[in-house]
Amino acid sequence: MATHHRARFVVCHRDVIEDGVVSIDDGRVVAVGPHDAARHANAVDHGETALVPGVVNAHSHAFQRALRGRAEHLTAGQDDFWSWREVMYRMANALDPEQVEAVSAMAFLEMARAGITTVGEFHYLHHQPDGTPYDDPNTLAHRVIAAARKVGLRITLLRVAYGRAGFRKAPDPLQRRFIDSDVYRYLGAVTALDAAWRHEPRVEIGMAPHSVRAVTGKWLWSISEHQKIMKLPVHIHACEQRAELEACKAEYGRLPVEVIADEGLLNTRSSLVHATHLDRRALDLIEERGPSIVACPLTEANLGDGILPAGELLARRAHIAIGSDGQSRIDPWSELSQIENNLRLRHERRNVLAHHADERDGRRHTADVLWPMANENGARSLGLDCGALAPGHPADMIALDLRDPALAGTRAGTLLADLCLGMTPRAVRSAWVAGEAIVSEGRHPAEDAIVDGFRRVMGTLERGL
Amino acid sequence: MATHHRARFVVCHRDVIEDGVVSIDDGRVVAVGPHDAARHANAVDHGETALVPGVVNAHSHAFQRALRGRAEHLTAGQDDFWSWREVMYRMANALDPEQVEAVSAMAFLEMARAGITTVGEFHYLHHQPDGTPYDDPNTLAHRVIAAARKVGLRITLLRVAYGRAGFRKAPDPLQRRFIDSDVYRYLGAVTALDAAWRHEPRVEIGMAPHSVRAVTGKWLWSISEHQKIMKLPVHIHACEQRAELEACKAEYGRLPVEVIADEGLLNTRSSLVHATHLDRRALDLIEERGPSIVACPLTEANLGDGILPAGELLARRAHIAIGSDGQSRIDPWSELSQIENNLRLRHERRNVLAHHADERDGRRHTADVLWPMANENGARSLGLDCGALAPGHPADMIALDLRDPALAGTRAGTLLADLCLGMTPRAVRSAWVAGEAIVSEGRHPAEDAIVDGFRRVMGTLERGL
Repeated sequence: MATHHRARFVVCHRDVIEDGVVSIDDGRVVAVGPHDAARHANAVDHGETALVPGVVNAHSHAFQRALRGRAEHLTAGQDDFWSWREVMYRMANALDPEQVEAVSAMAFLEMARAGITTVGEFHYLHHQPDGTPYDDPNTLAHRVIAAARKVGLRITLLRVAYGRAGFRKAPDPLQRRFIDSDVYRYLGAVTALDAAWRHEPRVEIGMAPHSVRAVTGKWLWSISEHQKIMKLPVHIHACEQRAELEACKAEYGRLPVEVIADEGLLNTRSSLVHATHLDRRALDLIEERGPSIVACPLTEANLGDGILPAGELLARRAHIAIGSDGQSRIDPWSELSQIENNLRLRHERRNVLAHHADERDGRRHTADVLWPMANENGARSLGLDCGALAPGHPADMIALDLRDPALAGTRAGTLLADLCLGMTPRAVRSAWVAGEAIVSEGRHPAEDAIVDGFRRVMGTLERGL
Repeated sequence: MATHHRARFVVCHRDVIEDGVVSIDDGRVVAVGPHDAARHANAVDHGETALVPGVVNAHSHAFQRALRGRAEHLTAGQDDFWSWREVMYRMANALDPEQVEAVSAMAFLEMARAGITTVGEFHYLHHQPDGTPYDDPNTLAHRVIAAARKVGLRITLLRVAYGRAGFRKAPDPLQRRFIDSDVYRYLGAVTALDAAWRHEPRVEIGMAPHSVRAVTGKWLWSISEHQKIMKLPVHIHACEQRAELEACKAEYGRLPVEVIADEGLLNTRSSLVHATHLDRRALDLIEERGPSIVACPLTEANLGDGILPAGELLARRAHIAIGSDGQSRIDPWSELSQIENNLRLRHERRNVLAHHADERDGRRHTADVLWPMANENGARSLGLDCGALAPGHPADMIALDLRDPALAGTRAGTLLADLCLGMTPRAVRSAWVAGEAIVSEGRHPAEDAIVDGFRRVMGTLERGL
């Protein structure tokens, strides 16, 4: 029998229903519409809240939660991405399996408290620190999935393929935990991981060739062949740092997006993460092949990557999703507003994204354009059917407190603008995944245990971390 | 007798004291140091928190809280600052005195919940909608001050001087509420306002010639003369929009900062708000005269103003403070990180501000540079002595929850980096102004009344607002 959730606002796609009801049965939405006293007599009344789809965080490296603050501190005096990466590698090598789980649980808890109900975990920690695989080569992947299950998040574990140190580079001992000896061993591990979680509806598996820098064209091609058979989502770091472009060109004679396309991995089941530096050819390929784009503006700012050309991408109908990536902050609402705000700063005008979308679809509001990036587009990127409070979709939703100082005074017509541009994690009151509550009244039931576990890990790290 | 507040961390200037105590007497800090069981036997133990100075929000237009979301919605299809300003004018003209107070209280409540304990309110709503002064020409200023007192914030009311529609422009009827008929009437109102609040220690008065666009050189000069006598802080919008530069040059033959300097208003008691577009001459003048700079990155992004050249300013030892300005979001922690992040995006590298500061002061961390912008520099800008938990300073402080998911796992060495780059308003647990609690356990005692009052106002606004 369906459970009815009533609230002052219910958001179904881009429509805001006043005094709405979401009806849930067996973990899925079965109906959405205005409250009807007769049909919804026993509704749970969430009062002055907005029920909206849970946020889909399409790109996360959970263990990097342990780097917050520390990375800033340890890289003082150094000013590039690559010095940051050295610190990240040290952290990656410092954590044992139990610690990987504890740190991941902390990241996932923070996500849930910020309104995220699904995470796409781009997971590249595979082996023991000396590079020897664990007895089960998916040991650490299982640990990360266990952390998501502890918190209750829906997860797509994107198992990373890492084959080499970089474009024509000698092996780097700091990457030993990431590197699989060959692509067939990698695909074997993916298949085993997928089989292990086949019957758990909140866990899905995908593939993630790390980047054209970290795997060869041969690997990309084999992964593409496997994708055709298994229909798995594939994520890849596309062009985050400008330095990668030249190095890629030197090896392949083409830029990364073209290489990815040529190797068969630019398609509607694939996602380009950090599509920061795109030439016209790359934009055309994206329009033609229809991959998702995952933007991580807070991380891309923190690492000095550059500004996503989101306007040009929207003008080509790209589906942009968001990710918390390096976890320097976990605030999907800031991620969302920054996509637009960065363009306003660059072009020194307002409503940039809506303007680009207008050219194809007629008058739009900034919020109309940003809103799907937080939910539907993320689900598309991960090959999931969550991301909308509409019949047939999983009941992944959050209740936002309309009396929180950030949202007070909103109304149906401005709710999406308030959520896309003025929202803060504090206003997240409850969260459900497949109809089950994971956050209630602003707290997670395992919060104390997870925070304590994380603090223990951080307490044992050495001085240099 | 002093009250002792104990916490896991106490931040005194840039030092983080573990197991620290802040001792307060008569609203001021009298001692800060490590906990001593004998001397602090009766200390209030705030446990797993960090006690840090309350944030100083140096630039606010409180009534613009009513525009959040709505302004985005109403300006769809228009893409500049000036179309936004039309909507803002309509809102400014829609509110009666009681409503101005209710909306201001909402903005101030949200500030308190985000960790702000002092606001510099750049107040330009003076008259009745038809331009007739109220019987008391400071009626609306008193209302805004009453709102700050209701919340308990320390306030510097910067009464705005608005003399004309713009560079060589005919009067705009939408600005009638802002415009004083002459500068002596303006200075009379400032003097009366200052006298009215002289005996209230949490209320100070300053002057704010709106911009070189909205007042003439003659006004600037008279205000400068008055500043010399009264020693009041003076704030002015400097160069927010590129379009202003040319218009200013056409009228004055010089750019805004030079005009301000020539009229005697560039000094250590004055602040340039939105110093976005600076040429070398302006930077040199800032170094020479020592005004404060108030940056409002979230608003400057929302309005497409541009990126503050904070690196060049720091290299010239400028004191940068932050402000929430248009209230599109109230999150001083995001304001802080955006100052650095915008530069990382622009220059595509990391640690930009620290690099600029290094050139003069030796190795610095990003957080060392950002941290004073949230407190000491704001106090300097407003001519106040708050902004530091150090003996002799007002006891304006906040307690941040170290078990909040955003701060969990921090330690003394990384606390400032976590606060400057990873913090969120949710972690603000308590706030005190002059030693009196205004927020306790994440709630304000008048919260329900203020939210209800604001919602009533928003409910009565017409459809177009």
